[in-house]
Amino acid sequence: MPRYRLTIEYDGMPYVGWQRQDNGPSVQGAIEAAILSLTGETVSIRGAGRTDSGVHALGQVAHADLSRPWKEHVLRNALNAHLALAGERVAILDAAAVPDDFDARFSAVRRHYLYRIISRRAPLALEARRAWLVMKPLDHEVMHAAGQVLVGKHDFSTFRAAQCQANSPVRTIDRLDVTRSGERIEIRVSAQSFLHNQIRSFAGTLKLAGEGKWSVGDVRAALEAKDRRACGPVAPPDGLYFVGVDY
Amino acid sequence: MPRYRLTIEYDGMPYVGWQRQDNGPSVQGAIEAAILSLTGETVSIRGAGRTDSGVHALGQVAHADLSRPWKEHVLRNALNAHLALAGERVAILDAAAVPDDFDARFSAVRRHYLYRIISRRAPLALEARRAWLVMKPLDHEVMHAAGQVLVGKHDFSTFRAAQCQANSPVRTIDRLDVTRSGERIEIRVSAQSFLHNQIRSFAGTLKLAGEGKWSVGDVRAALEAKDRRACGPVAPPDGLYFVGVDY
Repeated sequence: MPRYRLTIEYDGMPYVGWQRQDNGPSVQGAIEAAILSLTGETVSIRGAGRTDSGVHALGQVAHADLSRPWKEHVLRNALNAHLALAGERVAILDAAAVPDDFDARFSAVRRHYLYRIISRRAPLALEARRAWLVMKPLDHEVMHAAGQVLVGKHDFSTFRAAQCQANSPVRTIDRLDVTRSGERIEIRVSAQSFLHNQIRSFAGTLKLAGEGKWSVGDVRAALEAKDRRACGPVAPPDGLYFVGVDY
Repeated sequence: MPRYRLTIEYDGMPYVGWQRQDNGPSVQGAIEAAILSLTGETVSIRGAGRTDSGVHALGQVAHADLSRPWKEHVLRNALNAHLALAGERVAILDAAAVPDDFDARFSAVRRHYLYRIISRRAPLALEARRAWLVMKPLDHEVMHAAGQVLVGKHDFSTFRAAQCQANSPVRTIDRLDVTRSGERIEIRVSAQSFLHNQIRSFAGTLKLAGEGKWSVGDVRAALEAKDRRACGPVAPPDGLYFVGVDY
């Protein structure tokens, strides 16, 4: 069966998350429904990352096995037409034929996420649900310095949701950069894989550092505690974007 | 009566436009209702620019006369609270006491607009109604070159809506820059004042130049025709942002 790699953008707000679930509409379910409408085939697609409800994607990747070959741009355009007809906030940016041994989840060597904060007093008229509004002033240089404590191979038990299903709390963060442009602060994080809620836990903790409540040493102590109770408040999903995957 | 300058962000999508009208909700009406809720006063505010339905603002400016003085941050926060209660997609970024001779419309010396295009085949999952989706490849350097024809003092009858109420079709464009970052193209235009639909007429015409249908000479000929029928199709409001005003 021909295998296709789909690169996907979505607004996470109306969905229970990437993964198909019984309790509401999912991004995976929306794409599988579009494939069913187009091909008549019931397929199960696999994504590179299981984003939570409200988390957005600029470049989620999934693979799908179809019974017959498609021209790549025809597949992309036809899936987008079916998604639009269904009123989904999901777009297929690219469809590409890939070898049978490509696996969107297991072939990934690096995943890239972005967490967006807007730091100001006024509510977000244009970017509600697209960023985390923080009304306190934030020092992004302190946030960046605190973020460097988290880079490297560590036991991230502190920054892991209670319901995380990973076998090990050890992960290697390749990069964590905090930059600012006016009222906008961006946290960019890359790693081969992440724990459940890890980036939102990082963002919530770095926000405490940025507002001066925690020192860089406090962030290090939280990491070294290896204890969920040492984590700062988990940041809301609104600001989190799954940017892309390297294979 | 103390006069306040309000700097305003809004999502133009749910409104008939800036100006209060009989046919639906307006941004002006939303702010006047918030002032009424807060102060019990029925005031008429004046904005620097009358944006059309669907046009957004990052920094619209208006002035309001209130019967008693307010601390600036209290006024801003209280208006935002009333706007949020009413479910409006309008935020007061700043409120500042100004002299009685300040007029948001007539004191303006320069207005800045941004027109955003996203050039790609896939629909906009995250930025629907926030940019103009153009599915054809665009050459932004040709668009910029064509835009320079429009800079300076000209009779802009070609780029003016039939219903434009200005006395004269002559305006002076101080700056028109077209830049690109990946699939995103931005047109930034500054002038003391604009004609009705002028920037959307520019954007629609520059898009024709970007896709190779019109040459720079064709854009010059359209300007020199001084005839509405010579204009390219008017670009949709979705991509237009009122960025700010210089006083």
